[in-house]
Amino acid sequence: MTIKRHNPGPVLCRAVEHGGLVYVAGTTADNRAAPCKTQTEEILKKIDAALAAAGTDKSKLLWAQVWMTDIREKEQMDAAWKAWVDPENKPVRACVESRLATPETRVEIMVTAAK
Amino acid sequence: MTIKRHNPGPVLCRAVEHGGLVYVAGTTADNRAAPCKTQTEEILKKIDAALAAAGTDKSKLLWAQVWMTDIREKEQMDAAWKAWVDPENKPVRACVESRLATPETRVEIMVTAAK
Amino acid sequence: MTIKRHNPGPVLCRAVEHGGLVYVAGTTADNRAAPCKTQTEEILKKIDAALAAAGTDKSKLLWAQVWMTDIREKEQMDAAWKAWVDPENKPVRACVESRLATPETRVEIMVTAAK
Repeated sequence: MTIKRHNPGPVLCRAVEHGGLVYVAGTTADNRAAPCKTQTEEILKKIDAALAAAGTDKSKLLWAQVWMTDIREKEQMDAAWKAWVDPENKPVRACVESRLATPETRVEIMVTAAK
Repeated sequence: MTIKRHNPGPVLCRAVEHGGLVYVAGTTADNRAAPCKTQTEEILKKIDAALAAAGTDKSKLLWAQVWMTDIREKEQMDAAWKAWVDPENKPVRACVESRLATPETRVEIMVTAAK
Repeated sequence: MTIKRHNPGPVLCRAVEHGGLVYVAGTTADNRAAPCKTQTEEILKKIDAALAAAGTDKSKLLWAQVWMTDIREKEQMDAAWKAWVDPENKPVRACVESRLATPETRVEIMVTAAK
């Protein structure tokens, strides 16, 4: 089985395809001045783009992990998540609190999808 | 390859089947008044049920992740884990500390199994 | 599909093979007196050994997760990571802060590779 790697940076690839799966890297927002909900919306757009570049989309999401700088902002994140996720095709998910690369980064999301 | 989704809720499915794998969502205990060991036991029963509903069981566990509100309770969690896990078929695992959805939630576990 | 389990310990296996994938357990350094960069170097050697025992290597890494006791040491971890990772074959990755099994443990890494 071949491995196809997308958008390599200094430490990681944005997405990796293998064996009918697309692994997307932990994704954060560029607009770190924005509140948690807005950061989540930006992240989900980036994930849409990564999935599209790998030939799939959010209707094939299998697995997701969400990290939040402050778990008390979970409702904000979930508001953006619910508006985005395909209501007929929700993945499994875990959401926990972890400090992230910068204090302004409110949320980070990592997903795996089928293609 | 088809995707089969189990028990969809407002943000996630309890389990997703795809390509011979069963992904189970991050699972917490309903009895949040209970100590860490008891919460872990409840979680592992829920995981058993989710695996059974997807046609597999703990002997086919591949991968697990454990989050704990207080890593100093790891021995309590591990006592319940060791009593539960199939001794001939242990998965890989990571266990780290993260604040969870509520302060009373002492532990959350997410697994992937083959079927 | 068969499941092959490597180096079972009391709670987990060091690696599990299934369906063309190798799952490696969350890995920490034995030398906990060492600074973060040195701990990361030790971890990556252990991951090399686990991958080799399962018949693969870092050029086939798909997915990685890094937990750090103090995210402000991320540059130290990344220095060791960049010196190690195959520049043509970087995985997806997420890196977050979490307290680990002991306070001296500065970093823990979990990976999945193709074989």
